[in-house]
Parts: sequence; C-alpha cells; structure tokens
Amino acid sequence: MSESPQARLQAALAREIPLSRAMGISVVSWDGRTVRLAAPLAPNVNHKATVFGGSLSAAATLAGWSALWLLLDANGLMEQVVIQDASIEYRHPVTGDFVVECSLPDDGRVAHFLATLRERGRARLELVASVTSQEHDLVTFRGRYVAVRP
Amino acid sequence: MSESPQARLQAALAREIPLSRAMGISVVSWDGRTVRLAAPLAPNVNHKATVFGGSLSAAATLAGWSALWLLLDANGLMEQVVIQDASIEYRHPVTGDFVVECSLPDDGRVAHFLATLRERGRARLELVASVTSQEHDLVTFRGRYVAVRP
Repeated sequence: MSESPQARLQAALAREIPLSRAMGISVVSWDGRTVRLAAPLAPNVNHKATVFGGSLSAAATLAGWSALWLLLDANGLMEQVVIQDASIEYRHPVTGDFVVECSLPDDGRVAHFLATLRERGRARLELVASVTSQEHDLVTFRGRYVAVRP
Repeated sequence: MSESPQARLQAALAREIPLSRAMGISVVSWDGRTVRLAAPLAPNVNHKATVFGGSLSAAATLAGWSALWLLLDANGLMEQVVIQDASIEYRHPVTGDFVVECSLPDDGRVAHFLATLRERGRARLELVASVTSQEHDLVTFRGRYVAVRP
C-alpha cells in the first residue's frame, strides 16, 4: 500500500466507526509515537455551546484506539483492539474546535506489549489522551485497551 | 406545559445535543427515579460489529445528564448540568440495540443535593448508569455531575 499510515487510519475510522464521521473526526498527524485527531465544535456542541462531554470521551476513546491501530499497523500485526475501561476528567469546558492527542508510552512498555501480543495473542496497554483547544489542555483521559488476535 | 417530562427531555436532547440525534438516542421511560434511553446498533457500530466504546460512554453520559435534567425539571429548577469526571467499565461487548439506564440515588442524597443547590446555586451528584442489551448488564458507568445556576 502506498498510502500513508495516517490516510489508512482515516479510511479505517470512516469505514469502521461511522460515529467518527458524524463527529467530523479527522486524522491530523502521526509521528510514530503521537497521534492527533481533530474535530469541529458544531456536530459536538451541547446546551452550553461547548463540546458535549460524551463527544470528548468518544473522541479520546478514538485517539487511544488510533494510537494502538497505528502501532499494530507499523508492526504488521492485524490484531483487533477493544477498550476495557477508562476514566476521564473534564477540567475545563471546551469552547471551540478541538484536538485530541494520544502518545504511546515509553519504548520499554511498547516492546513488552508487542512481545506479549506475539507470544500470547493478547496484550493490554494503558494510554493517556488529552484534549486541547486553542493551546489549552482541558480534558484528560486514561483508557486500558486490549489487542486480541482474531 | 402539557407535554410529559419524557417528551420535554426528548426535545431538549434533540435540540441541545445534536450528537444524540446522530446516535439515534430515544427516551424510553422515566418513573421519577430511573430514566431509560435506547439506541440502535447501526449508527453506533464499530469494526467488530459491536457497539463502539465511545458511543457507550456518550450514551451513559447522556443518561446521567438526563436523570439530573428530569430531577431539576420536576423541582422547577433551571440550573444547567455539566459533567465533571467519569469512569466506565466495558465488561462485555454490546452486540445489538441497547438501553442505558440511570437511577437517582436514595431520597436522602437527592434531598441534600437539592437543598445545596437552592442554597448555594451549585451542587454535585454522583450517578451510576448501566448499559444492557437483550437483558444482559454489560457496561457500568459512574459520573459526577455539577448543576450550576446560570
């Protein structure tokens, strides 16, 4: 495939998770460690003209899923990723278009995750995502994901 | 207003949180303590043909918001409700249309919440919601909400 990982992720999100289209999610960047997704305010707005908490949690859930999808893709692994549990802290309202960013943990943890996955066909990784808008860090999300060989 | 609280909530959700329309959320019932929202699989589906975790967390966030909205409505209060933090446990995949249910806590806690809100113009309530599908309890959500006088 000649497409970039980013373009493949964008296509996978649009195809496999239709709510990401309703939310207007787009893949902004991926540098091998950090993925950034963007979304506009309008489809995600609430009664206070800020971003609906459920949209923020869905976008953060997608960012973690995306980071793992990109890691597996880069390693030629076809495992499926599901979320096991998550917590989210809404520290400040998000009043405009927003970005949600998720970075893979340090190399040691990533290597351990990949080794476990190759050996046992199943491995778990905790990821942190944060929502920023106009350069402000507003929301923190932690999710535990499991990759499973189909 | 002659409409039922349930109909007013449905209208408020559709008007104020457009993502609830994209998710196909409908208000099923409200008995003064428990609100039930329903959503179809199709707009909320993921890559595994089950419900996307972000949809479940958004639906649960809405169920808690709805329970508080209905409580305030029943008490003639116009405070606005926002979510402060939440956690969610995805115990089993949701493989079809689903219901998310949220009950108000015991009378003592509700009375304390309303008294604090009337006195200080601001009060917090923790709510638990659960997602069921085909009679199975699959996902547990806890959210802390704050009602604030505008």
